Amino acid sequence: MLNVKWDDNGLVPAIVQDALSGEMLMLGYMNAEALRLTMESGHAWFWSRSRQELWHKGATSGNYLNVVMVWYDCDIDAVLVQAKPDGPTCHTGERSCFYRRLTMEDVAE
Amino acid sequence: MLNVKWDDNGLVPAIVQDALSGEMLMLGYMNAEALRLTMESGHAWFWSRSRQELWHKGATSGNYLNVVMVWYDCDIDAVLVQAKPDGPTCHTGERSCFYRRLTMEDVAE
Repeated sequence: MLNVKWDDNGLVPAIVQDALSGEMLMLGYMNAEALRLTMESGHAWFWSRSRQELWHKGATSGNYLNVVMVWYDCDIDAVLVQAKPDGPTCHTGERSCFYRRLTMEDVAE
Repeated sequence: MLNVKWDDNGLVPAIVQDALSGEMLMLGYMNAEALRLTMESGHAWFWSRSRQELWHKGATSGNYLNVVMVWYDCDIDAVLVQAKPDGPTCHTGERSCFYRRLTMEDVAE
């Protein structure tokens, strides 16, 4: 397998981008098994850090992420998934998890 | 300050996207200071995990990331920076750090 630099928990951050619009959809984490399942199944799989289990995104909601291309970065410690989403990606119902803009007030001490 | 869910090292992953083209450029990590500097200076700042110091991206190379908008995700544990890059973002000279495509062979056991 590619010499991925997994973190101390055996994970890499995996960012998901809409393959058509370029919109950033979410950031999740994958272990080796999730990365392999993503490549083999054509759906994005993650490791759920809160539930500590493999997570087939969309299995509950129906909002699968249909993988078009997967890329890895120069340090091989992050992955980019370009996918076509079947519906809203965020559990809030928003299309993207990044739906709130950071303001100057948010970072004031 | 916004109630960011910092990890055990006081960091959040920060993904950077070209504000005009939508291209994914890199994934770095920010601590509270880097996030504040990013908002205040208009340049992306990170925490370098390898050097264990604040990292003003572009200070050495001249390839600054000029911040247009910053977003945070539903769980407040990841940040999206939309920026106009002054030059190639990757230290390899590539425009994006995600310049290599993952193949089925890469994930074969």
